[in-house]
Amino acid sequence: MVTLKDARRIIEAAEKKAEEIGQPMNIAVADSGGNLVSHVRMDGAWIGSIDISIKKAYTSRAFDISTKDLAEYSQSEGQFFGIHASNGGKIMIFAGGIPLVQDGRVVGAIGVSGGSGEQDHAVAEAGAEAF
Amino acid sequence: MVTLKDARRIIEAAEKKAEEIGQPMNIAVADSGGNLVSHVRMDGAWIGSIDISIKKAYTSRAFDISTKDLAEYSQSEGQFFGIHASNGGKIMIFAGGIPLVQDGRVVGAIGVSGGSGEQDHAVAEAGAEAF
Amino acid sequence: MVTLKDARRIIEAAEKKAEEIGQPMNIAVADSGGNLVSHVRMDGAWIGSIDISIKKAYTSRAFDISTKDLAEYSQSEGQFFGIHASNGGKIMIFAGGIPLVQDGRVVGAIGVSGGSGEQDHAVAEAGAEAF
Amino acid sequence: MVTLKDARRIIEAAEKKAEEIGQPMNIAVADSGGNLVSHVRMDGAWIGSIDISIKKAYTSRAFDISTKDLAEYSQSEGQFFGIHASNGGKIMIFAGGIPLVQDGRVVGAIGVSGGSGEQDHAVAEAGAEAF
Repeated sequence: MVTLKDARRIIEAAEKKAEEIGQPMNIAVADSGGNLVSHVRMDGAWIGSIDISIKKAYTSRAFDISTKDLAEYSQSEGQFFGIHASNGGKIMIFAGGIPLVQDGRVVGAIGVSGGSGEQDHAVAEAGAEAF
Repeated sequence: MVTLKDARRIIEAAEKKAEEIGQPMNIAVADSGGNLVSHVRMDGAWIGSIDISIKKAYTSRAFDISTKDLAEYSQSEGQFFGIHASNGGKIMIFAGGIPLVQDGRVVGAIGVSGGSGEQDHAVAEAGAEAF
Repeated sequence: MVTLKDARRIIEAAEKKAEEIGQPMNIAVADSGGNLVSHVRMDGAWIGSIDISIKKAYTSRAFDISTKDLAEYSQSEGQFFGIHASNGGKIMIFAGGIPLVQDGRVVGAIGVSGGSGEQDHAVAEAGAEAF
Repeated sequence: MVTLKDARRIIEAAEKKAEEIGQPMNIAVADSGGNLVSHVRMDGAWIGSIDISIKKAYTSRAFDISTKDLAEYSQSEGQFFGIHASNGGKIMIFAGGIPLVQDGRVVGAIGVSGGSGEQDHAVAEAGAEAF
């Protein structure tokens, strides 16, 4: 279970990482149902990334996989090509979403958006590790 | 301007009020562009209210009015009846959204959802006052 | 928690009730995240009610309330008027959705559609009681 | 014609296959109109695959083809590239959807989602064979 307190700890760690690499981010945390627990947009972060961060968190929980890995299977010729058209537009297939794992089960996810794919993934990783 | 720091102060005050009245809430803060700065879902708050809190914040900034007041004009027979169908479904026309005012100008809004209209409005008011 | 086995027991009871009153129904069961666990369309039931049954289940869990009760507050002049425009069109505000309660907490919902509001509610009730 | 009884037999066979390969699945059956007859989410199956299983069933009936075969023509440079943007987002172009055939005519389809493309297709095949 991901409580609001958990979400805040995750977001705090992610924010710290974002500050370290000098790139303001949108950070979102979803629970086991894929529903948003909390979101923050750091000052100066892209407004187009609000939606993306929330959707990366959803996607990562929806398929119990990082969006970085999902991306590999979702390119043209990949086995999941076209998955981005599912779930009413809620699927994001590029790096920045990572599942939150508790006792070996996925119980939620973090989604980060605001920089390069590599940066988003690194910030999400920092958040996931704080869980 | 509504910074993330401002949003957190506003949300903290709103959460405190929600705890006082014993009703867990979704609380969202939007900036002058109507774009989300931060959102929290208190433990146990309705999942259907995530979306509503964000949309109340948007609506309140979009028309520089509390959604409680907008509601009056948006009922059947009212002069704005049908406004909820505008803006791609982002408009909410019941109490819980309040503009954030700075130097006489609306610079953002808070949106609250999770209880009765009266409760939502009271919690939003507590948040707005902390700005 | 609502397992597939639970969902099948709930649906079986609802189907039995639908047969008793002689009206084929769509019956859907959602879990605590509002996500679909199972759906059946009885032979001859309306195809327009597939979507409605799934959305009634979602709505009932999203706000922890029967859609029959929600309907009362969601008419023009009611405190939740306009709520049907939230959550990306997933909200249904007429009878047929009932929360599933376990140890005093809502852990899912049943949604029924295919007859009059009264019939839908009665069938949903039979399903919820089997949980 | 695909009755609810047929759908249940198809789903039962598909579930059995999913258990054999040890991957929980979402399984959906659609009728000749492409409309959902029944859906089940096995415990532990991905929540993002609910929608996908239903859409694979729709797609497979909509074009009277397995989604595995449709996928071949729908990649970048393929003759149907872009087809996933048609039908209001109801089209899925990766393996797991298979038509249900009766007396040489397609009368419905099964859609499976929850594992790799190969797994989804194998489970769908087991379901289709039970028809």
